[in-house]
Amino acid sequence: MTTIRRIGNHPRWSDVVIHQHTARWVEVASDLSADSRSQITQILTQIDETLATLRAPRTALLEVIIHLAALEDVEILNALWDNWIPSGHAPIRACVQSGLAGSCRAEFIVHAATDF
Amino acid sequence: MTTIRRIGNHPRWSDVVIHQHTARWVEVASDLSADSRSQITQILTQIDETLATLRAPRTALLEVIIHLAALEDVEILNALWDNWIPSGHAPIRACVQSGLAGSCRAEFIVHAATDF
Amino acid sequence: MTTIRRIGNHPRWSDVVIHQHTARWVEVASDLSADSRSQITQILTQIDETLATLRAPRTALLEVIIHLAALEDVEILNALWDNWIPSGHAPIRACVQSGLAGSCRAEFIVHAATDF
Repeated sequence: MTTIRRIGNHPRWSDVVIHQHTARWVEVASDLSADSRSQITQILTQIDETLATLRAPRTALLEVIIHLAALEDVEILNALWDNWIPSGHAPIRACVQSGLAGSCRAEFIVHAATDF
Repeated sequence: MTTIRRIGNHPRWSDVVIHQHTARWVEVASDLSADSRSQITQILTQIDETLATLRAPRTALLEVIIHLAALEDVEILNALWDNWIPSGHAPIRACVQSGLAGSCRAEFIVHAATDF
Repeated sequence: MTTIRRIGNHPRWSDVVIHQHTARWVEVASDLSADSRSQITQILTQIDETLATLRAPRTALLEVIIHLAALEDVEILNALWDNWIPSGHAPIRACVQSGLAGSCRAEFIVHAATDF
Protein backbone atom coordinates (compact mmCIF):
# COMPACT_ATOMS: atom_id res chain seq x y z
CA MET A 1 0.00 0.00 0.00
CA THR A 2 1.14 3.56 -0.60
CA THR A 3 2.94 5.10 2.34
CA ILE A 4 0.99 6.79 5.14
CA ARG A 5 2.76 8.92 7.73
CA ARG A 6 1.08 9.94 10.96
CA ILE A 7 2.10 12.59 13.45
CA GLY A 8 0.73 12.70 16.98
CA ASN A 9 -1.03 9.36 17.39
CA HIS A 10 -3.80 9.55 19.95
CA PRO A 11 -6.07 6.57 20.62
CA ARG A 12 -8.98 8.39 18.97
CA TRP A 13 -7.29 10.18 16.08
CA SER A 14 -3.96 11.22 14.63
CA ASP A 15 -2.96 14.85 14.73
CA VAL A 16 -1.78 14.78 11.11
CA VAL A 17 -2.03 12.14 8.38
CA ILE A 18 0.19 12.45 5.30
CA HIS A 19 -0.44 10.53 2.08
CA GLN A 20 0.41 11.24 -1.56
CA HIS A 21 2.08 14.56 -0.76
CA THR A 22 -0.98 15.82 1.10
CA ALA A 23 -1.16 16.46 4.84
CA ARG A 24 -4.58 16.47 6.50
CA TRP A 25 -5.42 17.61 9.97
CA VAL A 26 -8.22 18.95 12.18
CA GLU A 27 -7.63 21.94 14.39
CA VAL A 28 -9.60 23.16 17.40
CA ALA A 29 -8.26 25.64 19.92
CA SER A 30 -6.06 24.24 22.68
CA ASP A 31 -7.85 26.46 25.20
CA LEU A 32 -11.56 25.91 24.64
CA SER A 33 -12.49 28.14 27.58
CA ALA A 34 -11.46 31.21 25.54
CA ASP A 35 -13.84 33.38 23.51
CA SER A 36 -14.33 33.08 19.74
CA ARG A 37 -11.64 35.61 18.82
CA SER A 38 -9.08 33.85 20.98
CA GLN A 39 -10.07 30.37 19.78
CA ILE A 40 -9.72 31.37 16.11
CA THR A 41 -6.42 33.13 16.84
CA GLN A 42 -5.19 29.99 18.57
CA ILE A 43 -6.24 27.82 15.61
CA LEU A 44 -4.34 29.99 13.13
CA THR A 45 -1.24 29.84 15.35
CA GLN A 46 -1.64 26.07 15.72
CA ILE A 47 -1.88 25.71 11.92
CA ASP A 48 1.40 27.65 11.67
CA GLU A 49 2.94 25.24 14.16
CA THR A 50 1.73 22.20 12.21
CA LEU A 51 3.04 23.74 8.97
CA ALA A 52 6.40 24.29 10.69
CA THR A 53 6.47 20.62 11.68
CA LEU A 54 5.77 19.75 8.05
CA ARG A 55 8.44 22.25 6.94
CA ALA A 56 5.77 23.80 4.71
CA PRO A 57 4.88 27.48 4.32
CA ARG A 58 1.37 28.93 4.50
CA THR A 59 1.38 28.90 0.70
CA ALA A 60 1.22 25.09 0.90
CA LEU A 61 -2.38 25.28 2.15
CA LEU A 62 -4.76 23.66 -0.33
CA GLU A 63 -8.12 23.65 1.41
CA VAL A 64 -9.53 24.92 4.68
CA ILE A 65 -13.07 23.95 5.71
CA ILE A 66 -14.27 25.99 8.66
CA HIS A 67 -17.09 25.05 11.00
CA LEU A 68 -18.20 27.89 13.28
CA ALA A 69 -20.52 27.40 16.23
CA ALA A 70 -22.10 30.79 15.44
CA LEU A 71 -22.33 32.49 12.05
CA GLU A 72 -21.96 35.86 13.78
CA ASP A 73 -18.30 34.94 14.31
CA VAL A 74 -17.58 35.04 10.58
CA GLU A 75 -16.61 38.71 10.87
CA ILE A 76 -14.08 37.91 13.59
CA LEU A 77 -12.84 35.00 11.47
CA ASN A 78 -12.49 37.13 8.34
CA ALA A 79 -10.55 39.90 10.10
CA LEU A 80 -8.07 37.39 11.54
CA TRP A 81 -7.98 35.27 8.36
CA ASP A 82 -7.35 38.21 6.01
CA ASN A 83 -4.29 39.20 8.02
CA TRP A 84 -3.00 35.65 8.11
CA ILE A 85 -3.59 34.20 4.66
CA PRO A 86 -0.84 34.63 2.04
CA SER A 87 -2.39 36.88 -0.59
CA GLY A 88 -2.12 35.39 -4.06
CA HIS A 89 -1.56 31.92 -2.63
CA ALA A 90 -4.76 31.34 -0.66
CA PRO A 91 -6.34 27.90 -0.25
CA ILE A 92 -9.95 27.25 -1.16
CA ARG A 93 -12.18 28.01 1.82
CA ALA A 94 -15.66 26.98 2.88
CA CYS A 95 -17.25 28.31 6.06
CA VAL A 96 -20.48 26.98 7.54
CA GLN A 97 -22.23 26.99 10.91
CA SER A 98 -22.39 23.60 12.62
CA GLY A 99 -23.10 22.39 16.11
CA LEU A 100 -19.80 21.97 17.98
CA ALA A 101 -19.27 20.12 21.25
CA GLY A 102 -19.01 21.95 24.58
CA SER A 103 -17.53 25.45 24.41
CA CYS A 104 -15.77 24.86 21.09
CA ARG A 105 -16.36 27.89 18.82
CA ALA A 106 -14.55 26.77 15.67
CA GLU A 107 -13.21 23.60 14.06
CA PHE A 108 -10.97 23.72 10.98
CA ILE A 109 -10.26 20.85 8.57
CA VAL A 110 -7.00 21.57 6.77
CA HIS A 111 -5.31 20.03 3.73
CA ALA A 112 -1.81 21.15 2.73
CA ALA A 113 0.80 20.06 0.21
CA THR A 114 3.92 18.59 1.75
CA ASP A 115 7.03 16.62 0.87
CA PHE A 116 7.48 15.68 4.53
CA MET B 1 7.43 21.07 -2.80
CA THR B 2 5.00 19.43 -5.21
CA THR B 3 3.41 21.85 -7.64
CA ILE B 4 0.29 23.79 -6.69
CA ARG B 5 -1.72 25.68 -9.29
CA ARG B 6 -4.28 28.27 -8.33
CA ILE B 7 -7.00 29.84 -10.46
CA GLY B 8 -8.77 33.06 -9.47
CA ASN B 9 -6.71 34.39 -6.59
CA HIS B 10 -8.76 36.54 -4.26
CA PRO B 11 -7.29 37.98 -1.06
CA ARG B 12 -9.43 35.63 1.04
CA TRP B 13 -9.38 32.44 -1.05
CA SER B 14 -8.52 30.97 -4.41
CA ASP B 15 -11.33 29.97 -6.76
CA VAL B 16 -9.61 26.67 -7.58
CA VAL B 17 -6.54 24.92 -6.16
CA ILE B 18 -4.95 22.08 -8.14
CA HIS B 19 -2.49 19.61 -6.62
CA GLN B 20 -1.59 16.01 -7.43
CA HIS B 21 -4.08 15.81 -10.32
CA THR B 22 -6.95 16.93 -8.10
CA ALA B 23 -8.79 20.25 -8.43
CA ARG B 24 -10.64 21.56 -5.39
CA TRP B 25 -13.10 24.40 -5.25
CA VAL B 26 -16.05 25.86 -3.34
CA GLU B 27 -19.12 27.02 -5.17
CA VAL B 28 -21.90 29.32 -4.02
CA ALA B 29 -24.37 31.00 -6.37
CA SER B 30 -23.21 34.21 -8.01
CA ASP B 31 -26.65 35.73 -7.39
CA LEU B 32 -27.41 35.12 -3.73
CA SER B 33 -30.65 37.11 -3.92
CA ALA B 34 -32.23 34.27 -5.92
CA ASP B 35 -34.36 31.47 -4.44
CA SER B 36 -33.06 27.98 -3.64
CA ARG B 37 -33.90 26.49 -7.02
CA SER B 38 -32.12 29.28 -8.84
CA GLN B 39 -29.10 29.19 -6.51
CA ILE B 40 -28.63 25.43 -6.99
CA THR B 41 -29.11 25.79 -10.77
CA GLN B 42 -26.49 28.54 -10.77
CA ILE B 43 -24.06 26.38 -8.80
CA LEU B 44 -24.39 23.45 -11.22
CA THR B 45 -23.80 25.82 -14.15
CA GLN B 46 -20.82 27.36 -12.35
CA ILE B 47 -19.37 23.88 -11.76
CA ASP B 48 -19.69 23.25 -15.51
CA GLU B 49 -17.83 26.49 -16.16
CA THR B 50 -15.03 25.55 -13.75
CA LEU B 51 -14.81 22.09 -15.34
CA ALA B 52 -14.55 23.77 -18.76
CA THR B 53 -11.67 25.91 -17.46
CA LEU B 54 -10.01 22.71 -16.27
CA ARG B 55 -10.79 21.04 -19.63
CA ALA B 56 -12.42 18.26 -17.61
CA PRO B 57 -15.82 16.62 -18.20
CA ARG B 58 -18.48 16.07 -15.53
CA THR B 59 -17.21 12.50 -15.31
CA ALA B 60 -14.05 13.91 -13.70
CA LEU B 61 -16.00 14.76 -10.53
CA LEU B 62 -14.70 12.77 -7.56
CA GLU B 63 -16.55 14.17 -4.56
CA VAL B 64 -19.27 16.76 -3.96
CA ILE B 65 -20.11 17.79 -0.39
CA ILE B 66 -23.31 19.82 -0.26
CA HIS B 67 -24.33 22.15 2.56
CA LEU B 68 -27.96 23.29 2.33
CA ALA B 69 -29.39 26.06 4.48
CA ALA B 70 -32.67 24.10 4.67
CA LEU B 71 -33.13 20.34 4.43
CA GLU B 72 -36.46 20.91 2.68
CA ASP B 73 -34.43 21.97 -0.37
CA VAL B 74 -33.02 18.46 -0.83
CA GLU B 75 -35.92 17.61 -3.17
CA ILE B 76 -35.13 20.63 -5.34
CA LEU B 77 -31.46 19.67 -5.23
CA ASN B 78 -32.14 16.05 -6.20
CA ALA B 79 -34.35 16.95 -9.15
CA LEU B 80 -31.70 19.30 -10.56
CA TRP B 81 -28.80 16.99 -9.62
CA ASP B 82 -30.33 13.86 -11.19
CA ASN B 83 -30.68 15.67 -14.52
CA TRP B 84 -27.14 17.00 -14.34
CA ILE B 85 -24.99 14.18 -13.02
CA PRO B 86 -23.45 11.77 -15.57
CA SER B 87 -25.14 8.43 -14.86
CA GLY B 88 -22.61 5.65 -14.30
CA HIS B 89 -19.87 8.18 -13.57
CA ALA B 90 -21.24 9.99 -10.52
CA PRO B 91 -19.01 11.37 -7.74
CA ILE B 92 -19.54 10.45 -4.13
CA ARG B 93 -22.03 12.86 -2.55
CA ALA B 94 -22.82 13.95 0.99
CA CYS B 95 -25.61 16.40 1.75
CA VAL B 96 -26.18 18.00 5.14
CA GLN B 97 -27.97 21.04 6.54
CA SER B 98 -25.66 23.75 7.89
CA GLY B 99 -26.03 27.39 8.78
CA LEU B 100 -25.00 29.53 5.79
CA ALA B 101 -24.26 33.24 5.82
CA GLY B 102 -26.82 35.82 4.68
CA SER B 103 -29.21 34.63 1.97
CA CYS B 104 -26.96 31.81 0.78
CA ARG B 105 -29.06 28.66 0.29
CA ALA B 106 -26.37 26.17 -0.75
CA GLU B 107 -22.60 25.77 -0.65
CA PHE B 108 -20.84 22.99 -2.57
CA ILE B 109 -17.29 21.70 -1.97
CA VAL B 110 -16.08 19.99 -5.13
CA HIS B 111 -13.10 17.73 -5.90
CA ALA B 112 -12.40 16.70 -9.50
CA ALA B 113 -9.64 14.86 -11.31
CA THR B 114 -7.66 17.00 -13.71
CA ASP B 115 -4.50 17.05 -15.78
CA PHE B 116 -4.72 20.83 -16.04
CA MET C 1 -6.96 12.16 -17.64
CA THR C 2 -5.72 10.24 -14.61
CA THR C 3 -7.63 7.04 -13.94
CA ILE C 4 -10.82 7.11 -11.87
CA ARG C 5 -12.38 3.88 -10.60
CA ARG C 6 -15.91 3.77 -9.28
CA ILE C 7 -17.63 1.06 -7.27
CA GLY C 8 -21.40 0.83 -6.96
CA ASN C 9 -22.70 3.28 -9.53
CA HIS C 10 -26.10 4.63 -8.62
CA PRO C 11 -27.82 7.29 -10.72
CA ARG C 12 -27.28 9.87 -7.96
CA TRP C 13 -23.84 8.94 -6.65
CA SER C 14 -21.15 6.29 -6.67
CA ASP C 15 -20.60 4.20 -3.57
CA VAL C 16 -16.81 4.61 -3.80
CA VAL C 17 -14.60 6.73 -6.04
CA ILE C 18 -10.87 5.92 -6.29
CA HIS C 19 -8.29 8.33 -7.69
CA GLN C 20 -4.58 8.77 -7.07
CA HIS C 21 -4.42 5.93 -4.54
CA THR C 22 -7.22 7.46 -2.46
CA ALA C 23 -10.69 5.96 -2.04
CA ARG C 24 -13.52 8.25 -1.01
CA TRP C 25 -16.98 7.28 0.14
CA VAL C 26 -19.98 8.41 2.16
CA GLU C 27 -21.58 6.09 4.66
CA VAL C 28 -25.02 6.23 6.25
CA ALA C 29 -26.65 3.30 8.01
CA SER C 30 -28.45 0.78 5.80
CA ASP C 31 -31.29 0.64 8.32
CA LEU C 32 -32.24 4.24 9.06
CA SER C 33 -35.15 3.19 11.28
CA ALA C 34 -32.64 2.09 13.96
CA ASP C 35 -31.53 4.24 16.89
CA SER C 36 -28.29 6.21 17.02
CA ARG C 37 -26.22 3.43 18.59
CA SER C 38 -27.35 0.95 15.95
CA GLN C 39 -26.86 3.39 13.08
CA ILE C 40 -23.28 4.18 14.13
CA THR C 41 -22.56 0.48 14.66
CA GLN C 42 -23.91 -0.23 11.19
CA ILE C 43 -21.74 2.52 9.68
CA LEU C 44 -18.55 1.14 11.25
CA THR C 45 -19.43 -2.35 9.97
CA GLN C 46 -20.18 -0.93 6.53
CA ILE C 47 -16.81 0.87 6.50
CA ASP C 48 -15.18 -2.50 7.28
CA GLU C 49 -17.05 -4.01 4.34
CA THR C 50 -15.93 -1.23 2.00
CA LEU C 51 -12.35 -1.61 3.22
CA ALA C 52 -12.60 -5.36 2.54
CA THR C 53 -13.76 -4.62 -1.01
CA LEU C 54 -10.73 -2.33 -1.39
CA ARG C 55 -8.52 -5.02 0.20
CA ALA C 56 -7.39 -2.35 2.66
CA PRO C 57 -7.09 -2.63 6.44
CA ARG C 58 -8.50 -0.11 8.94
CA THR C 59 -4.99 1.34 9.14
CA ALA C 60 -5.53 2.64 5.59
CA LEU C 61 -8.04 5.21 6.85
CA LEU C 62 -6.80 8.75 6.26
CA GLU C 63 -9.69 10.98 7.23
CA VAL C 64 -13.16 10.52 8.69
CA ILE C 65 -15.53 13.50 8.84
CA ILE C 66 -18.57 12.73 10.99
CA HIS C 67 -21.88 14.57 10.87
CA LEU C 68 -24.18 13.72 13.77
CA ALA C 69 -27.83 14.76 13.88
CA ALA C 70 -27.47 15.33 17.65
CA LEU C 71 -24.32 16.29 19.54
CA GLU C 72 -25.53 14.21 22.48
CA ASP C 73 -24.67 11.13 20.39
CA VAL C 74 -20.95 11.92 20.50
CA GLU C 75 -20.57 9.78 23.62
CA ILE C 76 -22.17 6.81 21.87
CA LEU C 77 -19.94 7.50 18.87
CA ASN C 78 -16.78 7.71 20.95
CA ALA C 79 -17.45 4.46 22.82
CA LEU C 80 -18.00 2.57 19.56
CA TRP C 81 -15.19 4.42 17.73
CA ASP C 82 -12.58 3.83 20.44
CA ASN C 83 -13.18 0.09 20.26
CA TRP C 84 -13.02 0.08 16.47
CA ILE C 85 -10.19 2.39 15.51
CA PRO C 86 -6.69 0.88 15.19
CA SER C 87 -4.70 2.52 17.98
CA GLY C 88 -1.51 4.12 16.71
CA HIS C 89 -2.86 4.20 13.15
CA ALA C 90 -5.94 6.39 13.52
CA PRO C 91 -7.18 8.71 10.76
CA ILE C 92 -7.77 12.39 11.39
CA ARG C 93 -11.31 12.91 12.64
CA ALA C 94 -13.71 15.84 12.73
CA CYS C 95 -17.14 15.56 14.31
CA VAL C 96 -19.85 18.21 14.00
CA GLN C 97 -23.62 18.42 14.39
CA SER C 98 -25.50 19.00 11.13
CA GLY C 99 -29.08 18.64 10.00
CA LEU C 100 -29.55 15.21 8.43
CA ALA C 101 -32.50 14.09 6.31
CA GLY C 102 -35.32 11.98 7.73
CA SER C 103 -34.35 9.63 10.56
CA CYS C 104 -30.65 9.59 9.64
CA ARG C 105 -28.59 10.00 12.83
CA ALA C 106 -25.07 10.01 11.39
CA GLU C 107 -23.30 10.51 8.06
CA PHE C 108 -19.59 9.72 7.64
CA ILE C 109 -17.31 10.95 4.84
CA VAL C 110 -14.34 8.61 4.57
CA HIS C 111 -11.00 8.83 2.75
CA ALA C 112 -8.66 5.82 2.73
CA ALA C 113 -5.42 4.89 1.02
CA THR C 114 -5.74 2.08 -1.49
CA ASP C 115 -3.89 0.35 -4.29
CA PHE C 116 -7.15 -1.15 -5.55
